[in-house]
Amino acid sequence: MTKTLISSDKQEITIGFEAPFCVIGERINPTGRKLLAAEMAAGDYSRVIADAVAQVEAGATMLDVNAGIPMADEPAILAESIKLVQDVVDVPLAIDSSIVAALEAGLSVYKGKPLVNSVTGEEERLEVVLPLVKKYGAAVVAISNDETGISEDPNVRYEVAKMIVERAEDYGIPREDVIVDPLIMPVGAINMAGRSALDLIIRLRNELKVNTTCGASNISFGLPNRHGMNAAFLSMAAGAGMTSAIMNPLHSEEMTGIMGANVMNGNDPECRNWIKRFREPVAAGSGGRERRQTRRSRSA
Amino acid sequence: MTKTLISSDKQEITIGFEAPFCVIGERINPTGRKLLAAEMAAGDYSRVIADAVAQVEAGATMLDVNAGIPMADEPAILAESIKLVQDVVDVPLAIDSSIVAALEAGLSVYKGKPLVNSVTGEEERLEVVLPLVKKYGAAVVAISNDETGISEDPNVRYEVAKMIVERAEDYGIPREDVIVDPLIMPVGAINMAGRSALDLIIRLRNELKVNTTCGASNISFGLPNRHGMNAAFLSMAAGAGMTSAIMNPLHSEEMTGIMGANVMNGNDPECRNWIKRFREPVAAGSGGRERRQTRRSRSA
Repeated sequence: MTKTLISSDKQEITIGFEAPFCVIGERINPTGRKLLAAEMAAGDYSRVIADAVAQVEAGATMLDVNAGIPMADEPAILAESIKLVQDVVDVPLAIDSSIVAALEAGLSVYKGKPLVNSVTGEEERLEVVLPLVKKYGAAVVAISNDETGISEDPNVRYEVAKMIVERAEDYGIPREDVIVDPLIMPVGAINMAGRSALDLIIRLRNELKVNTTCGASNISFGLPNRHGMNAAFLSMAAGAGMTSAIMNPLHSEEMTGIMGANVMNGNDPECRNWIKRFREPVAAGSGGRERRQTRRSRSA
Repeated sequence: MTKTLISSDKQEITIGFEAPFCVIGERINPTGRKLLAAEMAAGDYSRVIADAVAQVEAGATMLDVNAGIPMADEPAILAESIKLVQDVVDVPLAIDSSIVAALEAGLSVYKGKPLVNSVTGEEERLEVVLPLVKKYGAAVVAISNDETGISEDPNVRYEVAKMIVERAEDYGIPREDVIVDPLIMPVGAINMAGRSALDLIIRLRNELKVNTTCGASNISFGLPNRHGMNAAFLSMAAGAGMTSAIMNPLHSEEMTGIMGANVMNGNDPECRNWIKRFREPVAAGSGGRERRQTRRSRSA
C-alpha cells in the first residue's frame, strides 16, 4: 500500500492506509488572523511558537506553516517561522505558500523531508513548483483544480489529480510523494458535496493509489454545529480511505472523530491511544491525559 | 436501489441507501433494566409509554419493542406493549423476541407491516420464524450466525447472510424485506472488528444488495468514551452503506454522527434537518429545537 514518508530532523512519519490518520495542524496561518499577521510582520513569533506547541500537544502529527501576509516579506517570514517551529517541536512540517519564492525560502532552511503545500493542475504552477519539490526531495500536496477552475464534477477532479501525478512522475517525483487534495466543497451550498468527496476519495485510493488530504472544515462552511459536522465528515472520509487532513487539532470533536476512525480502521492497536486519551482518572490526583494537557496548555 | 418499507397504521418509512439512516430506538427492552422488567411483569406500562414518546421526540425513526423477562408471560406482555406503544406514537415498530410464541403474539396485534427482530441462520430458527414473517407480511432482521456460532471471519458471516436471504426467498419473502445484521464485535476485544464490519457492510450493500442494521453500541463495549466511539462508528458505517441501527436515540453524540452522515450521503436535502436541530436561537424566547425538546421531555 502507498506510503508517504515525511520527516523533520528528529522524526519520520508515515502517511498511508495502514497508518493512523495524519493530522496536519492548520493554526500557523495569518489568513483571517489579524493579530497573528501583525505580529509576524513585526518579527514577533511568540504566537507562532505557542501555536506550534499547543497543536502538537493536542495530537497533531504534522504542522502546516503559512506566512501569507499582504505587503510583507513572505519568503523571509516563512523561512524564519519554519526555523523557529523546528526548534520547538519534533513533528515534520508542511511548507504552505502560493508564492514560489516563499516555498523555496522555506525549503532552503527546512531540516528533513517536508510536504510542500501546494501545487495545482495549472500549467504555470506545475512548471515552477514540481522542479522545486524534486530539487529538495520533498513531497507535495496536489490540488485537483486547473486553469478552468474547480469542477463540480468529481470525474473531472479525478482526471486533474491523475494528470498532476503523471506530471510529477515526469519530473522524477514518485507517486507516493504526491498527496491529492480532492477539494472539499461546502455541503451547505452543494447538497451532494459530501457524497461526491467520499466517492472521489475511494477512487483516489483504489484506482490512483495515492494518499489524500483536504481542508476539512470547508465541508461545514455556513452551517451550525460545524465541529459536529466536521467530525462526522472526518470519520467517514477516513473510513473511505482519506489518510490526512489539514485541520485544527485543538477541537476535541474532530479529534475524537479521527481517533475513533483510527480504531475502526485497525490503526490503533489494542485501542491504546483511545484508552490513553479517554480513560477515567483511576484515583484522586492521577488525572487523565486531558486534564494534564489542560494544565500544560495553560502554562504554555 | 434496495428499499425496505415498514409501516404502522399511521406512517410508512423507507429503509434504503437513498433514505435517511433509520434509527431504531432500543430502549423498550427489560434486559438489564430491573425496574422496567418488574413494572412490565406487574402490568405497569407507564415507563414503556414514556420511553416510546421520548425516543420518538429524540429522533427515532422506528422503535424496537422487547419484553424478555424471565418467568413472565412474554407473549402477553409483548402484545400488550405493542398495542400501547402503537397508541401513543406513529412510528413503525420492530417486534423483538427470541421466543416464537411471543413474536406471533406481537404480530397478531400489530397494525401495519412490522420488522421482526430476528432470525438467525440456525436451521431450527429459520424453519419457524420465516413462515411467521411470510404469514404476516413482515420484514425481518437476519443475524449472520448459525449453528456453529458467530464466526470471526467476515466471509463466513457474509455466506450465512446470503444463505438466510436465499432461504427467505424460498419462503416467498423478497430480498428487500430481509435486513442483515452483520454482527458487530467489540473493537476492545478484536482489534480488526471495526474494519471487518465496515468491509462486510460494503459487501452486503454492493454484492448481496440488502439493507443492514446492527446493535451499534457493541462496538465500544469495555472502552471509555463509548458515545464518542459509537458516533464515529455510526458515521463510518452509514458512509459504508449501513442503512439502520438499533440504538439509543437519547444520546446526542450518536445522533449527531448519524445526522452528519445523512448530510454527507446527500440524504438531508438542503441540510434542513441538520439546521433545524443545531441552529442557534435567533432571538430571546425563540429557543432552538433542543431546548423545546427538553421542555417537552420534562412535561412528558
